[in-house]
Amino acid sequence: MKKITPSLPAGMRDFSPEEIFERKYIIDIMKNNFQKHGFVPIETPSMEKLSILTEKYGEEGDKLIFKILNSGDYLKKTDSGDYNDYHKLSKKITEKALRYDLTIPFARYISMNREKHPLPFKRYQIQPVWRADRPQKGRYREFYQCDVDIIGTKSIIAEAELISMASEILEKLKIPCYKIKINHRGLLKSFAEYIEEADKEVLLATIIDKIDKIGIDKALDELKSKNIDLDKINLLKELLLIDGSNENKLNYLEKKLKKTLKTESINELKLLLKYLKYLGTNMKSIIIDPTIARGLAYYTGTVFEIIVENSDIGSIGGGGRYDDMASMFGLKNCSGIGFAFGLDRIWNILKDSKLIPNLKSNTTKILVTNFDKETLGLLLNLTSKLRQLNINTELYPSTESIKKQLTYANKRNIPYVIIIGSEEKKKKKFILKDMNKGIQNLISIDKIENILKVYEDAGGDH
Amino acid sequence: MKKITPSLPAGMRDFSPEEIFERKYIIDIMKNNFQKHGFVPIETPSMEKLSILTEKYGEEGDKLIFKILNSGDYLKKTDSGDYNDYHKLSKKITEKALRYDLTIPFARYISMNREKHPLPFKRYQIQPVWRADRPQKGRYREFYQCDVDIIGTKSIIAEAELISMASEILEKLKIPCYKIKINHRGLLKSFAEYIEEADKEVLLATIIDKIDKIGIDKALDELKSKNIDLDKINLLKELLLIDGSNENKLNYLEKKLKKTLKTESINELKLLLKYLKYLGTNMKSIIIDPTIARGLAYYTGTVFEIIVENSDIGSIGGGGRYDDMASMFGLKNCSGIGFAFGLDRIWNILKDSKLIPNLKSNTTKILVTNFDKETLGLLLNLTSKLRQLNINTELYPSTESIKKQLTYANKRNIPYVIIIGSEEKKKKKFILKDMNKGIQNLISIDKIENILKVYEDAGGDH
Repeated sequence: MKKITPSLPAGMRDFSPEEIFERKYIIDIMKNNFQKHGFVPIETPSMEKLSILTEKYGEEGDKLIFKILNSGDYLKKTDSGDYNDYHKLSKKITEKALRYDLTIPFARYISMNREKHPLPFKRYQIQPVWRADRPQKGRYREFYQCDVDIIGTKSIIAEAELISMASEILEKLKIPCYKIKINHRGLLKSFAEYIEEADKEVLLATIIDKIDKIGIDKALDELKSKNIDLDKINLLKELLLIDGSNENKLNYLEKKLKKTLKTESINELKLLLKYLKYLGTNMKSIIIDPTIARGLAYYTGTVFEIIVENSDIGSIGGGGRYDDMASMFGLKNCSGIGFAFGLDRIWNILKDSKLIPNLKSNTTKILVTNFDKETLGLLLNLTSKLRQLNINTELYPSTESIKKQLTYANKRNIPYVIIIGSEEKKKKKFILKDMNKGIQNLISIDKIENILKVYEDAGGDH
Repeated sequence: MKKITPSLPAGMRDFSPEEIFERKYIIDIMKNNFQKHGFVPIETPSMEKLSILTEKYGEEGDKLIFKILNSGDYLKKTDSGDYNDYHKLSKKITEKALRYDLTIPFARYISMNREKHPLPFKRYQIQPVWRADRPQKGRYREFYQCDVDIIGTKSIIAEAELISMASEILEKLKIPCYKIKINHRGLLKSFAEYIEEADKEVLLATIIDKIDKIGIDKALDELKSKNIDLDKINLLKELLLIDGSNENKLNYLEKKLKKTLKTESINELKLLLKYLKYLGTNMKSIIIDPTIARGLAYYTGTVFEIIVENSDIGSIGGGGRYDDMASMFGLKNCSGIGFAFGLDRIWNILKDSKLIPNLKSNTTKILVTNFDKETLGLLLNLTSKLRQLNINTELYPSTESIKKQLTYANKRNIPYVIIIGSEEKKKKKFILKDMNKGIQNLISIDKIENILKVYEDAGGDH
């Protein structure tokens, strides 16, 4: 076998044990809260048919889909005319691709499994997705999404439940200074009508969406360059830059718009705020913000973005109401509301703020040292008993110097070491050495359960 | 958007909530026991460079690797000479592939992260792998492997720990009639020398490996067809078909072989049995069986296969000792022992034998019904309080008929329903209806914690 220097493809990551425990800590809090709110998990396969994935994410999105080469002689059905155009050839030599997000697979799943799930259906899904984006700091080609959706209801209660749950999870994770910024696509539509540019609604939304990145002035400049009158831009600016409490903002907008326009979207937002309060949501984190647009075309009502203030990470999640997610797969009238958390961003914030608790319960608590072949039977037996007491235990697998074994325990951060020398063996006892404090206890082998007391005295870390 | 009838690629599966909970039940028992024995998890990315994966799994294996088409204009670096030969073209238009197993990615990982992990390193890894095998009943193109390895030690203790742990996990899962059949590659080598066919060791191992599938007679016929004398075949048959206790088998083989050959492998197996006993392993499940070969070329010492007797599922796992797994990536002297469980097969056995316990703790316990807009604030508040009591609770999101809501609760198998009519509201109470027994309790809203007592009386299922 030829020797090669191993490396990873661009944008791919290995996860070390510590990293896995940290990510699991976050995922477990999410799952636990999803289930407490009545959501159940589904999982979809990594590969979908290309026909399911293409033309769902826009032209730019399609370029980022990882395609799987057909197996066997994939050139069999091609001819010379196909080799000039890679787009054309792709269609003949690939028919599967890696999932790009969890929304389209979910729409495909529910269309195929409608009878299994009475509506409203509340599902969560935590799985990796793949995108052939240019890798850069903090952006990977394989990353996890955590999606939650309630479909089959148009109720504002469902929206309140979802947003309140997002807030609860962020509180449990102790994310500092998070804010859930809420808007309504209907409000943006009214803004376009208010400045008499109803046909430019999509353009307005796209530019408004950039405000958090480029600032309001540059965004308004961009509107100017699209030939929108300065008067209208100033009118719009007034609507976007409102201040005060959530109630004040909504009352102000209502007063401005209701002379000429319907204000259903404002009523919906008012109802949403009311329900959020009833659910005991931390209302300090809830901000009505008319500059939130959420680029994705399929949102039709409430939209929200979860951000962390005073951080360069920006958005850590978001979502909104959609009316028609699964109709492309033949499922009609399936309105819903959903959102996704970005696991990597949340992980980064918790790491940066040192907010991940000690996760040592996963790792080895005791190393049984092994330096005398005559003692081995006793050591194996002892190791087995410690595990029966639910203590994560390792036996050093070969008879090496005690120094080497203690070094191993130190490198692995194993907090306790058991030592049985000839004298201890005679007395039917063992030494339990606390590697952090350097102190030792002598414990009878036939009273091994006393070890649990030593732990409790040390703070119960086992 | 054009409408399409959704379907899955061949060999791919969706998992429903119930299926996910069942699989999680198995995985959690594995992880828990892996960690109790001092193993830590790693995860590697779904994609590896093709140069890492190819030529590791034999010619047949290479054909089953799913290759990822390069992004962008992948034809740019090709010319007309490449289009006649798909093997040649593949090398120019693909450079990444989906992982085929967890062994090679682990070898790649440890070669790249040697300094992070003091030896011996005990890792487990539970992730999906992909193979372009022909899909058939019970065989998928995406399936989970559960790998465990100890590297950096040649100790027989490590082998005993691994096999004992496998047995413990199968006991915890209550797998019926499992057997761990153990052999040693050195013993097979001795067999070849004993019948004076030392150069045909690999051929012998390959054919012996088939005995469990085609039976001993057909396997011996195959040896005949490879021009091995009948006398020698009969000698071999005698060695393979030994009977009695493990100790008797090893003593018999030792007597036969030690006149002319070294019997180190027999000594190792004897030591292994001794250590397994010290570790408290269920010795009824441990069978010395000289017909176990394990096809993979990289095994060098102890090999074992985990089977379920009286079942058509056959092997549910297996592994062995290897001397040189990572040297292809430049890591020398890294002997180890490892094994893998087949998650799908174990899941199937547990399902068939109805051995998966009630996993309802994951799903919704209470549906709060909702049929009066005036009560909504109260309902939202109540729902939030129930969740604070750690009870998985859903609020029906719209005011529908009570019948429709009870039907929903029934279809979702939600065991309790809360009803607040105008009379209950006046009395500040709610009805807690047990959907299975049909009985009702009246509970004060300000003594909501009394709900926990109702649960306990019902057997604590929450």
